[in-house]
Amino acid sequence: MSDRYASFANSGPGRALVKRLGLPQPPLLRRFRPGDPLVTGPVLLGAAPGGRLDEPVRKMLTIAGVGLDGGPPWSALVFDATGIADTAALHPVYEFFHANARTLGPSGRVIVFGTPPEACSSPREATAQRALEGLTRSIAKEFGRGMTAQLVYVAPGADEFADSTVRFLLSGRSAYVSGQVIRIGHVLSSPMTDWAHPLDGKVALVTGAAQGIGAAIARVLARDGARVVALDVPAAGESLARVANEVGGTALQLDLTRPDAPSTLAAQLDSRHGKVDIVVHNAGITRDKTIGRMSAEQWDAVIDVNLSSQERINEALVPLIPEGGRIVAVSSTSGIAGNRGQTNYATSKAGVIGLVQSMAPVLAPQGITINAVAPGFIETRMTARMPVAAREIGRRMNSMSQGGLPVDVAETIAWLAAPGSAGITGNVIRVCGQMWLGA
Amino acid sequence: MSDRYASFANSGPGRALVKRLGLPQPPLLRRFRPGDPLVTGPVLLGAAPGGRLDEPVRKMLTIAGVGLDGGPPWSALVFDATGIADTAALHPVYEFFHANARTLGPSGRVIVFGTPPEACSSPREATAQRALEGLTRSIAKEFGRGMTAQLVYVAPGADEFADSTVRFLLSGRSAYVSGQVIRIGHVLSSPMTDWAHPLDGKVALVTGAAQGIGAAIARVLARDGARVVALDVPAAGESLARVANEVGGTALQLDLTRPDAPSTLAAQLDSRHGKVDIVVHNAGITRDKTIGRMSAEQWDAVIDVNLSSQERINEALVPLIPEGGRIVAVSSTSGIAGNRGQTNYATSKAGVIGLVQSMAPVLAPQGITINAVAPGFIETRMTARMPVAAREIGRRMNSMSQGGLPVDVAETIAWLAAPGSAGITGNVIRVCGQMWLGA
Repeated sequence: MSDRYASFANSGPGRALVKRLGLPQPPLLRRFRPGDPLVTGPVLLGAAPGGRLDEPVRKMLTIAGVGLDGGPPWSALVFDATGIADTAALHPVYEFFHANARTLGPSGRVIVFGTPPEACSSPREATAQRALEGLTRSIAKEFGRGMTAQLVYVAPGADEFADSTVRFLLSGRSAYVSGQVIRIGHVLSSPMTDWAHPLDGKVALVTGAAQGIGAAIARVLARDGARVVALDVPAAGESLARVANEVGGTALQLDLTRPDAPSTLAAQLDSRHGKVDIVVHNAGITRDKTIGRMSAEQWDAVIDVNLSSQERINEALVPLIPEGGRIVAVSSTSGIAGNRGQTNYATSKAGVIGLVQSMAPVLAPQGITINAVAPGFIETRMTARMPVAAREIGRRMNSMSQGGLPVDVAETIAWLAAPGSAGITGNVIRVCGQMWLGA
Repeated sequence: MSDRYASFANSGPGRALVKRLGLPQPPLLRRFRPGDPLVTGPVLLGAAPGGRLDEPVRKMLTIAGVGLDGGPPWSALVFDATGIADTAALHPVYEFFHANARTLGPSGRVIVFGTPPEACSSPREATAQRALEGLTRSIAKEFGRGMTAQLVYVAPGADEFADSTVRFLLSGRSAYVSGQVIRIGHVLSSPMTDWAHPLDGKVALVTGAAQGIGAAIARVLARDGARVVALDVPAAGESLARVANEVGGTALQLDLTRPDAPSTLAAQLDSRHGKVDIVVHNAGITRDKTIGRMSAEQWDAVIDVNLSSQERINEALVPLIPEGGRIVAVSSTSGIAGNRGQTNYATSKAGVIGLVQSMAPVLAPQGITINAVAPGFIETRMTARMPVAAREIGRRMNSMSQGGLPVDVAETIAWLAAPGSAGITGNVIRVCGQMWLGA
């Protein structure tokens, strides 16, 4: 699971050699540890005239104890572009990033705020706002050194609901999230949040929790205050117990493809906790073959475990999810872009995106959000077994020149699960270091 | 502009060497020539139970003289998945492609029909239909040998309006279009079409027509029957005149960034033709620099030429566009994925996507469609000047292992411009050989 090349390239002699040969230089990414401040230095705010978000963001950062002057270097460049109502008025975005491009420290952050094109009041405004996506994705590819850049579309009326997202993006929690477009919508109320333990009092179910990404999710949700119910198949019972013990949660051995699994699960959660606030659909399998060589069993198993079982479980659990509940499903960049040898897996993971997008409006009236994360190349036992050439291509072909860690996926899920993220639903967030492969 | 590697790799000794070294083997793509039949052999139709499109497609292919038995080999595999209302019912898609994966000839075609998830009657159905995207994109990456695969979402009630799209996708016109998702919506009437000369009687404006992709667009639209008004800047007057003469059209020298350009253009079109049926926004420039080194002029010029001028021209020309009119704008894969050194270009091309998506509903009541094409790596004088490593990466990193030709972009535009494409609006179609780079 270790990335020996990255360790070497960040050693003294390695750094020099890598530079000389023009090889990729994977930067050391800033990752969150409990007690870390939100940012490593002051944040520079900029805005185009007429923006809605400069004030709320300024207030929020001040409350969070973030300095707004003293740079360069800056730890983040935050630009409010919501005031731009015409492409002829895009110039201030250029001016801000042109002037400050070289003032950002390593693992620095770029956040551009916009209005969702679909919520704009004229085609001219929608066009200008949509254009910001090209800017942000290009900056994310250009800046390097572990910096990330995102476009955050905040719907009119939702100006006060961006805190949880801004905190996630500024912090080391979002180390491997870059080049993403996030949509924040209107919510009736944004609950006050204990930012150190946002999940206090929440019950969280994590499927596929015995190892890898699932175990990391259990750890991060527990760290953030949740009581974790760690679920996996009976065969993984031993490692599942270890994870459950480690996070002070409970282990639940269950094969989710069994016909009675949803009702069994619902009954267990109901009797033990009386509710489930957070459901993380992480369980998934691969059975890679080109479609001509793939058996019917390989197709059916992947579709059932990765997709259909999520639907059945949601149906059984929704009655147990209170207002403020959260469902987060794990998709994949393969589900977005397709992948050779993975027709079954890509179909299932594309379906997860459909599930999230089609259920979001259904669950919204109950105050429940549903989102997906789509990991790219993540360092796990699975990827460690890949052939070396394929592994190195997957690892390096992204704006971070390295694979992500399971904790990066887990942090992204914890952000979406937080009470402050009530305005985010139907989103698909890639955790891929801005992987260059895509649809 | 020539791809010497592809020529070599397709020669006798080259083919053997390339195979032995495991280098990419760019297949020779089947491209359309006037008089060509739609397909090179029979087409295999399949359907999941309860589909809407099997009958209309069968009828359409029969009218077009396409054989529906006699294979393998088949020239196309066409599957109607509109009957799939649940992920548990995805199995027939696997069965069809598993059984027939190896029966498709070189430059064969895969078309999967679905229902747009947003038009499905339940989340379960929407999820299953959205899952098809992962299947189609994976097949497009898997099949090789110049084969293409697309997912065509046909809205309920629009079953009769897919002809123009099916013809485009089956034919050699779509040689470099793969891995795309196309949406066909309901229209009041689908005019009868002369498939050999679908643009007879139409007046088509093509901007940036003096060379490269623009010249190819002028040629293909003229071939399909349009009277072409070829527009470019005065400095390109000589080559512009050559193109205009070649296609039997007229040349119009105009700098589109001049404040009076839209009104001048409208007046010219009005006095000469009294209308303009087809507007192709192809004019575009690049001024590549990282944003820290980019001058204000470089930013402003690219935004203005590639984006704002399109908005101004649309505003001036829409009164001259009759019912059945078509606007097609040229975007770019850089506008979708972002690109290092192209913040200005990517912003402008992302804006073009916003323009098309925001104007589509505004123009729909007038019977005018507006769509974008997003070229990937296209062999032009511009790409011929790229450094060799960057050029080879751009050329090979797609499912065709080669760059596209200007004519591939032109054919895609001609399809969108055809009367039979009335149900397609607000779409963004990549002409990129399923470039692996993406958002």
